[in-house]
Amino acid sequence: MRCDVLAIGTELLLGQIVDTNSAWIGEQLAEAGIDTYDHRKIGDNLARMVASLRSLLDEADAVIVCGGLGPTPDDVTREMIAEVMGVELERHEDLIEEIKRIFGSRAREMTDNNLRQADIPVGAAPIPNPIGTAPGIRAVFPYGGREVAVYAVPGVPYEMQQMVRDHVLPDLLARSGEQAVIRSRSLKTWGTSESALAEMIDHRVEAQTNPTIAFLARGIEGLYVRMTAKAPTEAEAIALLDAEDAELRTILGELVFGIDDETMESTVLDLCRARGWTLGVAESLTGGLIGARVANVAGASEVFRGAVAAYATEVKRDVLGVTADSVVSEECAVQMAEAAQRVLGADVGIGITGVAGPAEQDGQPVGTVWYAIAVPGHPTEAVTARLPFDRERIRQFSTITVLNLLRLRLRSLA
Amino acid sequence: MRCDVLAIGTELLLGQIVDTNSAWIGEQLAEAGIDTYDHRKIGDNLARMVASLRSLLDEADAVIVCGGLGPTPDDVTREMIAEVMGVELERHEDLIEEIKRIFGSRAREMTDNNLRQADIPVGAAPIPNPIGTAPGIRAVFPYGGREVAVYAVPGVPYEMQQMVRDHVLPDLLARSGEQAVIRSRSLKTWGTSESALAEMIDHRVEAQTNPTIAFLARGIEGLYVRMTAKAPTEAEAIALLDAEDAELRTILGELVFGIDDETMESTVLDLCRARGWTLGVAESLTGGLIGARVANVAGASEVFRGAVAAYATEVKRDVLGVTADSVVSEECAVQMAEAAQRVLGADVGIGITGVAGPAEQDGQPVGTVWYAIAVPGHPTEAVTARLPFDRERIRQFSTITVLNLLRLRLRSLA
Repeated sequence: MRCDVLAIGTELLLGQIVDTNSAWIGEQLAEAGIDTYDHRKIGDNLARMVASLRSLLDEADAVIVCGGLGPTPDDVTREMIAEVMGVELERHEDLIEEIKRIFGSRAREMTDNNLRQADIPVGAAPIPNPIGTAPGIRAVFPYGGREVAVYAVPGVPYEMQQMVRDHVLPDLLARSGEQAVIRSRSLKTWGTSESALAEMIDHRVEAQTNPTIAFLARGIEGLYVRMTAKAPTEAEAIALLDAEDAELRTILGELVFGIDDETMESTVLDLCRARGWTLGVAESLTGGLIGARVANVAGASEVFRGAVAAYATEVKRDVLGVTADSVVSEECAVQMAEAAQRVLGADVGIGITGVAGPAEQDGQPVGTVWYAIAVPGHPTEAVTARLPFDRERIRQFSTITVLNLLRLRLRSLA
Repeated sequence: MRCDVLAIGTELLLGQIVDTNSAWIGEQLAEAGIDTYDHRKIGDNLARMVASLRSLLDEADAVIVCGGLGPTPDDVTREMIAEVMGVELERHEDLIEEIKRIFGSRAREMTDNNLRQADIPVGAAPIPNPIGTAPGIRAVFPYGGREVAVYAVPGVPYEMQQMVRDHVLPDLLARSGEQAVIRSRSLKTWGTSESALAEMIDHRVEAQTNPTIAFLARGIEGLYVRMTAKAPTEAEAIALLDAEDAELRTILGELVFGIDDETMESTVLDLCRARGWTLGVAESLTGGLIGARVANVAGASEVFRGAVAAYATEVKRDVLGVTADSVVSEECAVQMAEAAQRVLGADVGIGITGVAGPAEQDGQPVGTVWYAIAVPGHPTEAVTARLPFDRERIRQFSTITVLNLLRLRLRSLA
């Protein structure tokens, strides 16, 4: 089974919007074991759209079309599919009612243009859109001596994703004769390089076909090890994931900081919460980034007390009471972590200081960072690193690194 | 002149990387007045790559190919071009020397595979790559009874951008017979909606063909009004931009916060620096985001003293001395702005408090935000807003909004 992707919109060609939809769809297709070989972006031009869809259907068994389903005269995905099928559009009365209902409930004024969203090619079927006004389209028809499928979905990412997940993928799998349930899980890691990680688990990657194992490098979000399992039932797919998860963790150990929707900051907050501890941050070169990242977790307020971004040396001395000679030193980082406990009334304190550039400071080169972690009842510990990055990456990298150090410290107490 | 884009890489189809290159190239082509109608992503498969390039050249005068120029056996863009041209590859001795030199200077070990990067189709020419090992390729050859051009550039964005800007676009313009210099400038605005902005300058957009005027919505970075001018010389192009810039500013007034590489935070720092004033931030719901954004400007340390992210109510009271009954109130925001001056030793203070959610606080609904600005010698002023967004967007939107309020306040003192 081969399914390609056609993204519609002149704004995509002009670079006003980056097409992220086709990458997301490609990821889902790969997980589902469906081949995808050709992704295209075409502007809102009916003749070119028709030619492009035909050319894709010459090779592919199915095509997912994103965008061009809106109410404006530009939006001609409906017309494109009708033309390739060789049929007319027909207006669906039940869809008109649905569109009117949605407009009513949002108290917006509906123009007649919106009724075009109730047009479906004869012989095709609408796909419900529970979160937008434009229904999708599923068209299965003979083409080039065989049966092909075209799915039209909205260009709005969250509407597209819901429709692909709930309708298009199950339909594609049914058409491919595949009865399997597909489930995936990502083990998120921090603390080693991509090549070192690959070497650690190469034998598992080679040995495993179900679940398959892949790497995803997500920059300062970490390196993910993604397992994808296929089985007759969800329970069996989950069991396959659980078994491989256990194998991988015996190899990866503490490199794994979370799975799927867990983030480094949510993991750290969970570890603090489990002990009933609160968290405070004293940061310098990161300027508030650590606090901002922690505060972005819903429910952070139970644990997170706050942060002092002591950018100027005087703020380190006056607000945090730093007495260290150099503000880029182990002593300073330790004093900052302990000040985070004291000044912010927190059980756990993070201290971080260093040189993000552009210029060196206190005789220390750009990229020098000191991290300190203070926890109740134990001596405060500090480590240093020299980061070979630019200003922005030094700040981002330091942020996840110090959160990871806190995670490891809390785990070591367990 | 029509130039399409072919992005090469299986990792693009699998969604492991989002193709941002073709959007960037599309933007450059549009500015240069070159049509672009079809952008494709194809995996590292020689047969499919050849078929795709041929099919694009059936319609386009030129194609820019991104990626597939690396040293690994997967990288077959060179072979693709040779096959479409109907020629062999030849190894360029001078390129071998260059590749060896780069490896030597970086003290990395070079494998023989790297020599493949010195292979160029007979009749094509290398394009220099001053910042990477893979040279690009420029191939001009007869195809389908006319002359076409194929440009191969690296997939690494900054190498690609430099090569497209310095070599590909000038060559395309020369081939199109276009002698013009093209220059663009973006006026960045904050404070009104896209439709309101469009209404304000619609008559200029309609009237102007040189420079052309377009909108770009960049989320919390603002709405950009982008002018693109074409003229025989750079000086004439700049003069056209200057004239339209002046026209637009009489209409847009204080909505414009900067141009091109200027950001809201760099603008605010510049305004403070011009008065010799330092800046301190007391933030609540944003958790450190304002400080982080300000600290990200190179040279921030001259102006930025630091930030207190007072997430917990006790931190507002103990560290910032807030006495207001409710921590979501005008009084609290004002006390925070003045505490930012006092506690952080800053001339100018920002105070911001509110409810990012998920739950309401102090009887105030999610999305309620109070912003306060304290400047020397004037009473502290505060405003409120109710933001209809989710948690993350409330925090992001509040950050740029309060920086914009500070900008307007500083401008009003001028």
